[in-house]
Amino acid sequence: MSSKKIVLSPELPAPLLVVGSVAYDSIITPYSQRERCLGGSASYASLAASHYTTPRLVGVVGADFNPDYIALFKKCDICLEGLKHDKSGPTFYWKGEYSEDWNSRKTLEIQLNVFEKFQPELPVFYRNTPYVMLGNISPELQHSVCDQLQGDPFIIADTIDLWIDIQRDALLKLLKRVHCILINDSEAAQLTQEKNVIRAGYKLLKEGLPMAIIKKGEHGAYLFHPKGIFALPAYPVTNVQDPTGAGDSFAGAFLGYLAAMKKTDFNHVKQAMIYATATASMTVEALSCDRICSAEASEIEKRAEELKTMVSL
Amino acid sequence: MSSKKIVLSPELPAPLLVVGSVAYDSIITPYSQRERCLGGSASYASLAASHYTTPRLVGVVGADFNPDYIALFKKCDICLEGLKHDKSGPTFYWKGEYSEDWNSRKTLEIQLNVFEKFQPELPVFYRNTPYVMLGNISPELQHSVCDQLQGDPFIIADTIDLWIDIQRDALLKLLKRVHCILINDSEAAQLTQEKNVIRAGYKLLKEGLPMAIIKKGEHGAYLFHPKGIFALPAYPVTNVQDPTGAGDSFAGAFLGYLAAMKKTDFNHVKQAMIYATATASMTVEALSCDRICSAEASEIEKRAEELKTMVSL
Repeated sequence: MSSKKIVLSPELPAPLLVVGSVAYDSIITPYSQRERCLGGSASYASLAASHYTTPRLVGVVGADFNPDYIALFKKCDICLEGLKHDKSGPTFYWKGEYSEDWNSRKTLEIQLNVFEKFQPELPVFYRNTPYVMLGNISPELQHSVCDQLQGDPFIIADTIDLWIDIQRDALLKLLKRVHCILINDSEAAQLTQEKNVIRAGYKLLKEGLPMAIIKKGEHGAYLFHPKGIFALPAYPVTNVQDPTGAGDSFAGAFLGYLAAMKKTDFNHVKQAMIYATATASMTVEALSCDRICSAEASEIEKRAEELKTMVSL
Repeated sequence: MSSKKIVLSPELPAPLLVVGSVAYDSIITPYSQRERCLGGSASYASLAASHYTTPRLVGVVGADFNPDYIALFKKCDICLEGLKHDKSGPTFYWKGEYSEDWNSRKTLEIQLNVFEKFQPELPVFYRNTPYVMLGNISPELQHSVCDQLQGDPFIIADTIDLWIDIQRDALLKLLKRVHCILINDSEAAQLTQEKNVIRAGYKLLKEGLPMAIIKKGEHGAYLFHPKGIFALPAYPVTNVQDPTGAGDSFAGAFLGYLAAMKKTDFNHVKQAMIYATATASMTVEALSCDRICSAEASEIEKRAEELKTMVSL
């Protein structure tokens, strides 16, 4: 898969741990729909990260999980030692529908299935992975992953409105254990109780986070860092087909870039956001994981360069 | 007013023509309200432009117009030769209310008054002004201003949904007479019948425009230019008090910068957007024109520098 892997440094990239959901999604968009296709935060994040390094996946699938998807993960250089096969039930299932203007989506159905009893267990050789993405799972489970980690890994966490609602304390405690939270603007407002996105970002830093990224979808993303704010627009996509997984792809590529560079300073984090934006822009151009899988290294690099040009004075 | 004027070049800035409304606004925000304060596109645009050059205002006020506002314009180095005093009726009046999250506003009352019969008439010495802003008035009146101009001025135009609805053809013809349109994202979608903002921007260029700026409020602005797209975030304002006139201030400062530099190439236009964003960020921090009037040159320059830092890789 050498043409899919972006080579950023003469050194080998560091590995990357991705914890989250692996799911069947049924997606209805204004233009098309698809039943039971590959989805889940860990799927999108590892596929995006696989363009930069070797992701180590931690998740669970059920008895009905399509072996073609296993083959797909393997073909994309994703380590599946941490993917549990729970034969006691079916795979996590989500069905959603996007509005005409893409600005909202309705969840039509959720079946937690084997994901309900999921307890992330890290294979021994995963435990000292130096870059860790805690994808969208409950803050309690995100804590349990942190408990199993060794060394001093760089950890980023994602979350959703549900956990802010029902596990707020666990989430606030988690912010003290991770290096960066990636969160969208409405979730940032909900978590910090601050509607102004700039004040919300500064409040996240005050919670003890070394940095925070607030994502605004088609309007780009803000990085809040002790060295300053960095604002980046989205890549100008003209052909959105399915926004599902854009945020997970952003997170996976973001951390994948840092793992490939083995640096997490302000300047590298800004560069990582460029690559994350370029990578996520591929995801939304097709249903499910189709485009994030098929993306060539050269395509992502071209978009990263275009984005740099687009913001340069 | 030397501390209010930004000095960008050792040469004297070129003058700038601003055509638009001068109004009384009554503004209700989630935090405060004010009756019959200074408003209108030409007021905001000339006050913003006055930080860069000498604006020449073209507009009309009624018998009730407060002479203090005349004194204010004069104090800000705004030429009022083209401001008509129509004693036959009161000044244009607008009353509006902003929603809790600032994302929408309701017009509660409009009284066109003397603005209804307004026919812009350029004093002779205005006619060869090299930089012209056609603020939000009917496309027909914008054409009549173009008809009076001499030489080969650089012209920018603003518009609103109303004119796209009821004077679409006149507006499309105007696009062939001006160098840049400044329009917000929903208006761009309405005008081009293209919801995707990137495709909308390219469509505007196809109408024969040399460049187009699509404004997205708190999410910044896009420049569409044959040399490429430039995307700029908004200045991170944490204390919004009244968004009225932000777009007009952006336009006035944008053209004011170009008039001060006497350049309109891609790189200068990008720099102009930085200054326009910095200037407009002052406007929204107080009701009416309070803050755009009181802003010091050093404050605007500081924000322009902060914005450059915020987007630099």
